[in-house]
Amino acid sequence: MDKNDYIFGIRPVIEAIEAGKDIDKILVKKDLSGELINELYDLVKEYKILIQRVPLEKINRITRKNHQGVLAILSSVTYSNISNVIPEIYEAGNMPFLVALDGVTDVRNFGAIARTCECAGVDAIVIPERHSVSVSGDAMKTSAGALNYVQVCRERSMVGALNYLKANGCKIVGASGKTKVSYTDVDYSVPTVIVMGAEDKGLEPEVEAVCDELVTIPEYGKINSLNVSVAAGILMYEVVRQRNKK
Amino acid sequence: MDKNDYIFGIRPVIEAIEAGKDIDKILVKKDLSGELINELYDLVKEYKILIQRVPLEKINRITRKNHQGVLAILSSVTYSNISNVIPEIYEAGNMPFLVALDGVTDVRNFGAIARTCECAGVDAIVIPERHSVSVSGDAMKTSAGALNYVQVCRERSMVGALNYLKANGCKIVGASGKTKVSYTDVDYSVPTVIVMGAEDKGLEPEVEAVCDELVTIPEYGKINSLNVSVAAGILMYEVVRQRNKK
Repeated sequence: MDKNDYIFGIRPVIEAIEAGKDIDKILVKKDLSGELINELYDLVKEYKILIQRVPLEKINRITRKNHQGVLAILSSVTYSNISNVIPEIYEAGNMPFLVALDGVTDVRNFGAIARTCECAGVDAIVIPERHSVSVSGDAMKTSAGALNYVQVCRERSMVGALNYLKANGCKIVGASGKTKVSYTDVDYSVPTVIVMGAEDKGLEPEVEAVCDELVTIPEYGKINSLNVSVAAGILMYEVVRQRNKK
Repeated sequence: MDKNDYIFGIRPVIEAIEAGKDIDKILVKKDLSGELINELYDLVKEYKILIQRVPLEKINRITRKNHQGVLAILSSVTYSNISNVIPEIYEAGNMPFLVALDGVTDVRNFGAIARTCECAGVDAIVIPERHSVSVSGDAMKTSAGALNYVQVCRERSMVGALNYLKANGCKIVGASGKTKVSYTDVDYSVPTVIVMGAEDKGLEPEVEAVCDELVTIPEYGKINSLNVSVAAGILMYEVVRQRNKK
């Protein structure tokens, strides 16, 4: 991680929060206590920042400087609010096209997906707060700058976000290995959200349950393990192809 | 690089060649001379093995052991011969579908493309001897084992290989940023070779000249830089989609 990507030490982290810096998450050494740390906890609660209690070694792996058991990972993007994004798309007279990433944790895959989103004209990427990649400087680099142009919505609950999108007229289409429906047999000419699951275990059951359609990419080999960024690209460009045909 | 991926020292490399090991290429320190090295050169000529004269540091970066200025990089796959592959496909009653990679040098991209080839039912991957990734253990790993199932043809001349494929009934379709023809506007129901260029500079002009069709993936953003493995996936699955529809 680049040293511009984080701030360490209790007081500097408190100051960063108060200065309104976009913080991806705060790592705090397990069992840390004291007056100052309580002040930090109050602020974290007030600003609704994600906090993770981790073993000391995890913070030491990022910096060996005097971090006092507290390290804030800064975000490289300013997150958008999904409840602003959707009205903006409709007001601009566009057909919503979003990509939700439920548990994509590899920063290279995330970067490649962000690049494809930018190329395919995706309006916004939706990621959950937990079990997701950190949108840090590394993500920005692997996205080749695409994250400067695609909006990212970071939502506390993926299920909540998808239900919100559904209530606002979007069809939720999840990529899944559990269906026989080909991704080419679904109509994407309506407002669409493509949902991609974790590289290893696919969609969470509760996320799958929200989807209007589950689709699969047909595979003809023995290994059958499309890379998630390649699979996302194939799905996104099927949306583009269908919409261009109309 | 894994230490199972190479053999070093003049005598061990000579023995490896004589034992019929699949060698990707041999790195030789510039200006190396002597009787034994001439014996190696004779063998390299006889077996048509690619040899590269490199600065000492390049070999030192791979191993600091006593390599005597000679290091052979082993291939993880047994290469197929394109003049055997094509008749085999036709004899099996299949419609040829090949992917040619002209200058793809990033091993992670190569691995992801090999995985997609395996999933999409591609018959063979064609790569050139020079300016290509080494199909070493790293490539095997990033391909998640797909290289055990997809044939790889390593050709001295990419132009020669494409001309051979053309003469044998294949349509050569090159991905290029220089055309306005969308990849969805081409008919892939005939024997097809998809040609992908280098990550940075695209197809070589002489390769472009052999192509029957140049196609582009439409992009709607500001960055417009699809990752080559994502772009390859989008093209391959358009071939699959069209063939499934028939």
